[in-house]
Amino acid sequence: MQDASIINSRDLAFQLFEVLEAGKLTQRPRYADHSRETFNAALDTAHAVAVEKFATHNRLSDEHEPQFDGQRVILPAEVKEALDALRATGFLAAGKDYEWGGMQLPSVMSFACLSLFKSANMATSSYAMLTMANANVIERFGSAVQKRKYLQALFDGRAFGTMALTEPQAGSSLSDLVTSATPNEDGTYSIRGNKIFISGGDHELSENIVHLVLARIPGGPPGVRGISLFTVPKFRVNDDGSLGERNDVALAGLIHKMGWRGTTSTMLSFGERGACVGELVGEPHQGLAYMFHMMNEARIGVGLGAVMLGYRGYLASLDYARERPQGRRPDNKNPLEPQLPLIEHADVRRMLLAQKAYVEGAYALCLYAARLVDEQNTGESDTARAEAALLLDLLTPVVKSWPSQWCLEANSLAIQIHGGYGYTREYPVEQFYRDNRLNMIHEGTHGIQAIDLLGRKVVMKQGAALKLLAREVGGTIEAARAHAPLHAHADALARALSDLNATVDALLPTLASESERALANANAFLEAFGHVVIAWTWLRQAVVASAALAGSTSAADTDFYRGKLQACQWFFRWELPRVALMLSTSRSLDDTTLRMAPQWF
Amino acid sequence: MQDASIINSRDLAFQLFEVLEAGKLTQRPRYADHSRETFNAALDTAHAVAVEKFATHNRLSDEHEPQFDGQRVILPAEVKEALDALRATGFLAAGKDYEWGGMQLPSVMSFACLSLFKSANMATSSYAMLTMANANVIERFGSAVQKRKYLQALFDGRAFGTMALTEPQAGSSLSDLVTSATPNEDGTYSIRGNKIFISGGDHELSENIVHLVLARIPGGPPGVRGISLFTVPKFRVNDDGSLGERNDVALAGLIHKMGWRGTTSTMLSFGERGACVGELVGEPHQGLAYMFHMMNEARIGVGLGAVMLGYRGYLASLDYARERPQGRRPDNKNPLEPQLPLIEHADVRRMLLAQKAYVEGAYALCLYAARLVDEQNTGESDTARAEAALLLDLLTPVVKSWPSQWCLEANSLAIQIHGGYGYTREYPVEQFYRDNRLNMIHEGTHGIQAIDLLGRKVVMKQGAALKLLAREVGGTIEAARAHAPLHAHADALARALSDLNATVDALLPTLASESERALANANAFLEAFGHVVIAWTWLRQAVVASAALAGSTSAADTDFYRGKLQACQWFFRWELPRVALMLSTSRSLDDTTLRMAPQWF
Repeated sequence: MQDASIINSRDLAFQLFEVLEAGKLTQRPRYADHSRETFNAALDTAHAVAVEKFATHNRLSDEHEPQFDGQRVILPAEVKEALDALRATGFLAAGKDYEWGGMQLPSVMSFACLSLFKSANMATSSYAMLTMANANVIERFGSAVQKRKYLQALFDGRAFGTMALTEPQAGSSLSDLVTSATPNEDGTYSIRGNKIFISGGDHELSENIVHLVLARIPGGPPGVRGISLFTVPKFRVNDDGSLGERNDVALAGLIHKMGWRGTTSTMLSFGERGACVGELVGEPHQGLAYMFHMMNEARIGVGLGAVMLGYRGYLASLDYARERPQGRRPDNKNPLEPQLPLIEHADVRRMLLAQKAYVEGAYALCLYAARLVDEQNTGESDTARAEAALLLDLLTPVVKSWPSQWCLEANSLAIQIHGGYGYTREYPVEQFYRDNRLNMIHEGTHGIQAIDLLGRKVVMKQGAALKLLAREVGGTIEAARAHAPLHAHADALARALSDLNATVDALLPTLASESERALANANAFLEAFGHVVIAWTWLRQAVVASAALAGSTSAADTDFYRGKLQACQWFFRWELPRVALMLSTSRSLDDTTLRMAPQWF
Repeated sequence: MQDASIINSRDLAFQLFEVLEAGKLTQRPRYADHSRETFNAALDTAHAVAVEKFATHNRLSDEHEPQFDGQRVILPAEVKEALDALRATGFLAAGKDYEWGGMQLPSVMSFACLSLFKSANMATSSYAMLTMANANVIERFGSAVQKRKYLQALFDGRAFGTMALTEPQAGSSLSDLVTSATPNEDGTYSIRGNKIFISGGDHELSENIVHLVLARIPGGPPGVRGISLFTVPKFRVNDDGSLGERNDVALAGLIHKMGWRGTTSTMLSFGERGACVGELVGEPHQGLAYMFHMMNEARIGVGLGAVMLGYRGYLASLDYARERPQGRRPDNKNPLEPQLPLIEHADVRRMLLAQKAYVEGAYALCLYAARLVDEQNTGESDTARAEAALLLDLLTPVVKSWPSQWCLEANSLAIQIHGGYGYTREYPVEQFYRDNRLNMIHEGTHGIQAIDLLGRKVVMKQGAALKLLAREVGGTIEAARAHAPLHAHADALARALSDLNATVDALLPTLASESERALANANAFLEAFGHVVIAWTWLRQAVVASAALAGSTSAADTDFYRGKLQACQWFFRWELPRVALMLSTSRSLDDTTLRMAPQWF
């Protein structure tokens, strides 16, 4: 795990075992067979496969987009080889029960393993991520028959999965979906409609593809209350699990994107020939609730993906800054002296430190979210499980949006450190930037996350989730007070948290009476909230680093912990102060945008 | 000029004739033949050529990068056709004397015309921009022979020009250039060395290419004080102006970039066969000063290019937001009602208003800079000319950097408004975003602009330039006080300006004694300074709009002026408040980045 190019392994170990204390999970019955050694073995295997099979074709599949030859979607052979290796090592079922052939790893460990594949090759790992998200839905809501027909195949990777939500005329407005599902006499449904932006919608990477499709059963209620969820396989599956004839799902076109080019993005036609068979998942008209279950995990996945692209760029620019000689200090322009490495320049170090603060702070958040999934599933009391679920629900829009915005900014800084070279396709950083730009859009745009957070999450259950967050943040603030160098940070975070709570209180009446106005500046609230949460993840890390530093006997560890403290300080001095500004603008209910008439543009 | 796709012509007319009062320039002897009609005719011609010849292949040349067939660099035929049209309409010499075949247009008008080509197709227009910048240097510093051999050909577009500064081992550190220029007996020099990132370095678009090359005459002083400037033509030019044999300039490779793909970016080898002939421009060892003359105009050009890419994306997303139905208001979720156009959503309007504020504010700044060039050249007194030169010198780093950063952000917002479609190559906005990312890098990175501003420009001549800026901004603040709705803005700008001056005063001692520390956070200072300047350009516009609104009799004008006032308000409420924060961090001389040891990363 020493290859710096896809991860700083020291940081990963710190996050998992020092901050999140993942080792303690082995005390729980579900993970009793596990130990720090089995956790490390999983990480090592994932790292090796990621480096050897995924990272090696990241540029290749960017340059060779999926092609449709009239019959099949053709991808570079390396994509399938990588996914075969991932299948063979069992990571598609990393968190699943032993009886399904899973490793029964805690979520925090399986997310950590997956983060390595994402870092190595976002596009190729997407096929696996979609498959796992899809399998989760069938496992939770599918019938016994659906599980028998699809689940083992998905866990093994014989079938891959998709999420087929979006339609051309509806975009983010799921209320306006029109794909229909007409009941057949045998209990199946005939699906008819068009879907767009379906990642992994067609390929030859697996024997079968299982689409999870949102559609309307005729006669159901309008809007989101009339949406149902269906399994629609590319090849029908016989009762014995063998593959039957081709279902009526046709590739209507491949979509060409700015980045993330290795993942097929498709337009799909369901039922053009009137012969597309789907099976209802769960109850009719409950499709949106089921899909949100999948989407919430997908949103953590998006956040984690954004982090890993940022992380990869950070490491690349760090290497470059250490190796590339360039210029001299401002107070020494003597051209006869050798040039200094870029990292010696203050502004380059700023760009490295900012990247470190963004990507390691966001990584901490995503792994914490995964740890909450474990708590929700295996927490030691009903209260612990319920609280974890609530907290996760509150944090999901932040987990999805903050990395999408700030780890993209990290990618921009990585380009900047490379100078002109960073803008060329000879260096990897421009691809990370292009790939990462998608994350603010898919699985619910930034704007949708903002409305979800302010309009729903902070007010749900009389603000119970927010109170829970305040309690957790408060705990970290208390812990920080035991470390003198962190006092100022503890005070700053306490102020920001109190400011955040006051802002929510101030907005409540307007949220109830005039939601359009209260939500008009939800974006500023989301940014402020995200900064508070990331400041918290940094203070948590700083508390651990500060304690460890006192007892550190290795120079490498000492350097590492000092770096953590310095990055924390940077975030508190350079980023956290913006929170007060954003919250004050939120509270002001400024109506500048609302009052901008369309004809004034 | 009604095609909304490359410009809002109403805005252009407002900037030129209402804010900058370009019409008054016709009272000056040099522009006596001109009138509002000839100005408009030039704009109309540029607009027509830009729309018909440039915009039409913007995506095509992105998709078909320059190819080297072993002999020649091949570009799509449309590139040459567009440049032929630009040549034929005389825009390469738009500002030049009649005797050279020029139009003798004021700079502000020729920049305005060029902005239309840039908006329509950044990559293709780059060949023209480089040629004009190159010709300016030869016109100003070249010998009579050099002018005879090259200048008319450059003005006519028979020859195109390049700037060959950067070398692989030196990057931004011009001090470390090693290309040599050894005197020959006939007064010419033998050039030997390698240059990288030379835009327009090879192609078949013109009969000849004139490279302006920085190189060292052996025996000269080390560092930047020993750099000289040379003309190095691709084909040698005989005394009668006819083309002679091929010079020893070889294409060593084409560079493949994230964006801006239609412009060849090259590695060039000079003198591989020992037969590369160059001619000294001006005096030996004065190359850097000459090049800076060219670079300062090039930096305005970079800023203007960044603006136009932002502007283009803004207009595209505005059209999309008006046409695309999507969702309903937060307080009306009834799915039986039709979907609303995107522009009806508050968060979409925020993204449009932010783009408008960024691109129109930055456009105002770039055109103001061009107007300063006119004042510097044709101002009515020595004082007026000297002051314009000083102010331009101060503002150049802002003109270069602010649009590069914020109009790129505008491009990101344009993608966001398009949702998933914006990320595809079926829509134009992703290309603008890719193209625009270069602008923070070339012609001096963001970091270099920051050091130039804080380390040199604000302190030069005992702060005379800054005092001049304060006087100009103060004048606008006074004018705004005559308009009640602008009082709060006037006060806010006055506070920000005073804060800026106080910050400079606070930093002066450290700049003198500990420049590395004072400059460590120059980036924050540059951002704050830029925001103050853009707030000023908005207040100037608002003063004009507010006065015009009172007398407006047309509904279209009324809408337009209201839009200006609203965008100004948005910038003052949402962006200007960040200045105090950035300046306070600057003043604190925070040393977090300086103290981050390289081994702590």
